[in-house]
Amino acid sequence: MIHWFRSDNTAPACPEILDALLDANREHAAAYGEDAWSLRLDAVFSEFFDRSVRVFPVATGTAANGTALAALCPPYGAIVTPAHAHVVRDECGAPEFMTGGARLLLADCPDGRLSATQLVQVLDDNPANVHTVQPAVVSITQATEFGTVYRPDAIAELAAVAHRRGLQLHMDGARFANAVAFLDCAPADITWRAGVDVLSFGATKNGALAAEAVVFFDAEASRGYEFRRKRAGHLLSKMRFVSAQLLAYIETGVWRRNAAHANGLARRIGEAAGSSLLQTVEANEVFVRLPPPRAAALRDLGFAFYDWGAAGCGEYRFVVSWNQDAADVEALCTALRSGS
Amino acid sequence: MIHWFRSDNTAPACPEILDALLDANREHAAAYGEDAWSLRLDAVFSEFFDRSVRVFPVATGTAANGTALAALCPPYGAIVTPAHAHVVRDECGAPEFMTGGARLLLADCPDGRLSATQLVQVLDDNPANVHTVQPAVVSITQATEFGTVYRPDAIAELAAVAHRRGLQLHMDGARFANAVAFLDCAPADITWRAGVDVLSFGATKNGALAAEAVVFFDAEASRGYEFRRKRAGHLLSKMRFVSAQLLAYIETGVWRRNAAHANGLARRIGEAAGSSLLQTVEANEVFVRLPPPRAAALRDLGFAFYDWGAAGCGEYRFVVSWNQDAADVEALCTALRSGS
Amino acid sequence: MIHWFRSDNTAPACPEILDALLDANREHAAAYGEDAWSLRLDAVFSEFFDRSVRVFPVATGTAANGTALAALCPPYGAIVTPAHAHVVRDECGAPEFMTGGARLLLADCPDGRLSATQLVQVLDDNPANVHTVQPAVVSITQATEFGTVYRPDAIAELAAVAHRRGLQLHMDGARFANAVAFLDCAPADITWRAGVDVLSFGATKNGALAAEAVVFFDAEASRGYEFRRKRAGHLLSKMRFVSAQLLAYIETGVWRRNAAHANGLARRIGEAAGSSLLQTVEANEVFVRLPPPRAAALRDLGFAFYDWGAAGCGEYRFVVSWNQDAADVEALCTALRSGS
Amino acid sequence: MIHWFRSDNTAPACPEILDALLDANREHAAAYGEDAWSLRLDAVFSEFFDRSVRVFPVATGTAANGTALAALCPPYGAIVTPAHAHVVRDECGAPEFMTGGARLLLADCPDGRLSATQLVQVLDDNPANVHTVQPAVVSITQATEFGTVYRPDAIAELAAVAHRRGLQLHMDGARFANAVAFLDCAPADITWRAGVDVLSFGATKNGALAAEAVVFFDAEASRGYEFRRKRAGHLLSKMRFVSAQLLAYIETGVWRRNAAHANGLARRIGEAAGSSLLQTVEANEVFVRLPPPRAAALRDLGFAFYDWGAAGCGEYRFVVSWNQDAADVEALCTALRSGS
Repeated sequence: MIHWFRSDNTAPACPEILDALLDANREHAAAYGEDAWSLRLDAVFSEFFDRSVRVFPVATGTAANGTALAALCPPYGAIVTPAHAHVVRDECGAPEFMTGGARLLLADCPDGRLSATQLVQVLDDNPANVHTVQPAVVSITQATEFGTVYRPDAIAELAAVAHRRGLQLHMDGARFANAVAFLDCAPADITWRAGVDVLSFGATKNGALAAEAVVFFDAEASRGYEFRRKRAGHLLSKMRFVSAQLLAYIETGVWRRNAAHANGLARRIGEAAGSSLLQTVEANEVFVRLPPPRAAALRDLGFAFYDWGAAGCGEYRFVVSWNQDAADVEALCTALRSGS
Repeated sequence: MIHWFRSDNTAPACPEILDALLDANREHAAAYGEDAWSLRLDAVFSEFFDRSVRVFPVATGTAANGTALAALCPPYGAIVTPAHAHVVRDECGAPEFMTGGARLLLADCPDGRLSATQLVQVLDDNPANVHTVQPAVVSITQATEFGTVYRPDAIAELAAVAHRRGLQLHMDGARFANAVAFLDCAPADITWRAGVDVLSFGATKNGALAAEAVVFFDAEASRGYEFRRKRAGHLLSKMRFVSAQLLAYIETGVWRRNAAHANGLARRIGEAAGSSLLQTVEANEVFVRLPPPRAAALRDLGFAFYDWGAAGCGEYRFVVSWNQDAADVEALCTALRSGS
Repeated sequence: MIHWFRSDNTAPACPEILDALLDANREHAAAYGEDAWSLRLDAVFSEFFDRSVRVFPVATGTAANGTALAALCPPYGAIVTPAHAHVVRDECGAPEFMTGGARLLLADCPDGRLSATQLVQVLDDNPANVHTVQPAVVSITQATEFGTVYRPDAIAELAAVAHRRGLQLHMDGARFANAVAFLDCAPADITWRAGVDVLSFGATKNGALAAEAVVFFDAEASRGYEFRRKRAGHLLSKMRFVSAQLLAYIETGVWRRNAAHANGLARRIGEAAGSSLLQTVEANEVFVRLPPPRAAALRDLGFAFYDWGAAGCGEYRFVVSWNQDAADVEALCTALRSGS
Repeated sequence: MIHWFRSDNTAPACPEILDALLDANREHAAAYGEDAWSLRLDAVFSEFFDRSVRVFPVATGTAANGTALAALCPPYGAIVTPAHAHVVRDECGAPEFMTGGARLLLADCPDGRLSATQLVQVLDDNPANVHTVQPAVVSITQATEFGTVYRPDAIAELAAVAHRRGLQLHMDGARFANAVAFLDCAPADITWRAGVDVLSFGATKNGALAAEAVVFFDAEASRGYEFRRKRAGHLLSKMRFVSAQLLAYIETGVWRRNAAHANGLARRIGEAAGSSLLQTVEANEVFVRLPPPRAAALRDLGFAFYDWGAAGCGEYRFVVSWNQDAADVEALCTALRSGS
């Protein structure tokens, strides 16, 4: 029997989402986003964010990030982002592709969070002149790739620097719900109220089958976006099936329940990991350093998890899914404690 | 009550596909196509096509066409295709985007089918020299945008010209099943046996929720393809949900049953349309010329269908879906006949 | 001995341009356009056009057209242009490349000139919706590829349609001087006064070694342009050598003298060609239909000229250069007349 | 009076080049590289490199680098290069643009030279899998941006690693002649004999007006290159004027004389700079650390040179041009010594 801690991408979809999908499948409906589900998205997300927003569903997080960045960054632009961001390490150059050749300017962020000081440093090191790419966007991830979470004021500081220098602020929210659940804040608090211009809103990792969305907090910025989405192949003909997932995700409250469940179990693993912890556990990911033989022993017990960093360096990642069984987690905690 | 004849994209998914989806949702599974469903695709499609093939699922037909063309056509290349092809009219420049700026060279094909003679003409009109784009691919649609179907020998003639001139042959098979059902042939007969190099294999219009695939009949040609798919945002994290649809589509035989059902009903509409028919009805689409007041009258009766061509020109398209009710069709036939 | 009528690209540079080049070579000067010559360009061109303009030199006409179009057209945009335009037939897809994958929408213009009626037709045939590319630019050539010249009011009509529909008007002025000389008008009359937004200003064909420029009649539209030029490799380090050519071209008046000379001789060839003329001779190009044996006989006499259209179709192009010898032309006229 | 040490780009062209230009201007000649000068390039460069090569002239170094990298690197590829390379800092994203969105992977190289160990490290840190860009090219600069020069065996080590891992080796030879002059080697010794696949061959900084070339040491690798050059606007219509510069540059031996002259004077400045030197002086650039008041004092004396690194950090660059006056250099040496 496998205990799955490899990724929240390995989890199935949750019942609320499946029910919505089946419900959306009863009859004919208009194609390409003209259906009743898709047409409700702007309103539902506007209420969710307590502000009038424009929402565009897509099928993957890479699509959301890439098309969002393309909407914000000219081909001759640059995007400042942490060196370990998903847009850097895990999207096979989607930002460069979607923007038409913009560049990622990397900051070394050991806990996954870019600071305003670092942003200033990167911008100072890359002065805008005709000989070089023009910094146009800052992209941060919430929760980060290291399971940490930006506080609202940290985001606001980044936004202040960005906006003062003429850049826009993009947030990759693949685990947005986990961040909100951890902070116990309103979705607005870590987005537009803190200065975020565009959000990649993720649902797939937290209980959907395949449902992400690009959320523009300023409608004007979304001008032209729908054409970019279409030509990237992300306007689904039967869009209702993505939209229905997103609606259920928000309206049933499962977005927060699932995230809180996963966060809570991750915290217990973090406590069990004790001094082997590499990062503070804030969302649903746990990073630990273990002697490789211990990791091998855990794997022999059926625990599935990823190596992190260079092969053999003794760093590992455990991700808790929305449907993780508490018994799974207890077994892992026991195993971690016994070996400490 | 609406009688839906606007597009096969308006139909729900069929039970066989839904069952497969639910079945794939029971447990955790590896992400990004490493799951048991995705890993079976090459074998199942290879049997389907009676040849060893490489298959890459994506979420939309635009994604399939765009990434397939990018795999075949250099940025300085050109793609010969009918002027009314989906890649021309309905993908917002996806081929140009995905290829990095290749060009579409258009042929005027009144019944949707490109002939070998026309292909020769386009190639002669666009001689390859350093001053112009280099023809690299021929892209045809099967069944065509006008509901007509290429015979195997017509495809073979196109392939012969293409290959002799150094071009490759791509087939947009958004309605591939409808073409096979009409021809009552093997899938191989209108693909690799006739010289097709790469196929965009569609399932969405014929009963899936969102499931398409790029099929390479020569594995070598697929080198690099997976990177293009990934950076376009089309490697789904929970890929099993697309793969499971494709497996069910093929293995239950629903691909052919659904297509045959739709084709058969379309033929009846075609017979009812009589002399107002604009195109021979071969697949599941019916094109008719009607006095605009008659079209308006049909709409008053609840029939939903698209204008075709320029507004007010009196041309209309009716598409029959996999789940079309025979009574719907009878009602339409009666209405069409009564007005003839 | 060869009588060169193949292209004005085969001519050497004129003395005024060479003198300016040598003069610019005396000492050190700042690089990348910060030199004294480049810094004068805006003022000199603003006087030339009787309006405050922004000017950016580049080395080729393809570079001028491609970067200008990229400044005006989004990647998901489309450019309406005659089917025989240089941007279509002779730039190996530079517009597609520079724009990031925009599309050319072609109009069939037998005399090289796009009419406002045709523009309306193309726009009506390509209604903007999310499924297709968005018409954003009209590109015309002055003088055209067929040696004809747009009158100011024809340009104004095109501009009116374009602007009303939200498109901008680009002019490829590879032979701009020949058009002005023919019309005996002010440069402003066929550019901004008629509604042209951006001009590719050519000097190479009319006596320079390699000197073209992109002229923005609205400074705002040039925002970001310099980055596109730089990353396309068209900001020359020793830019003064291009700028000095452009300054001499305008300030010595050679732009008009050279063009008038070539136009005048072309007119004489046109008169000699009589009924074999395919196009009215307005600028410095002459298109004729000849029996292929007669063309062969002319070539035996040393006349060098291009076949036009399909091989063997009996259509030929003669281009008169700025330095064409009157005796050359007389010899050609005599030969043409003798065979009529 | 200004003593120019800002850049070798500020120098005029040398007499040998100008004479060749004037000589090429006497008569008509075929356009677009079909002229007698351009047609000799392959032979002359093949003799120069002691191997059969294919040569393509372009107008700028950015064009040479960008188009060369595009020929070697797929859109989903990556290019390993020092963080201070010209392709990184000074080309406004040309590599990303020309390749269609490839990525630069940066190594920190304090003396400008990438080592084989660093290359291995970068490749190990960027393992090729479907989730990330695929390392495809190593790009090094000879002489480097810091005025240092790779020895043949260091290049061979890089090539060995690159080729073993499936990457190709590109050399930016904007100051190639300076490197050869310093090493007193054959051009082949630091190119194909050491494993270089493609070279950007520079002449502009060393005495030409505007003349660079892309040299393929394997003709097969150049397939498709000419189309990339053309669509980037770098196939000049009057190409003879670039080709004539390149021929004269090589055939008169001025390439080596100019470089040796500049290198020799730079060495004297280096000796005068003594302990303030930041880099060993090998080619024609001198990097020094000076108290900012001393730098200001030098500028008051008429010495023109660039700040290097961050503003106010006290690092400066002096570049010696092909035509630098020995008296200029003596004056600088005296000034540097007096302040030590």
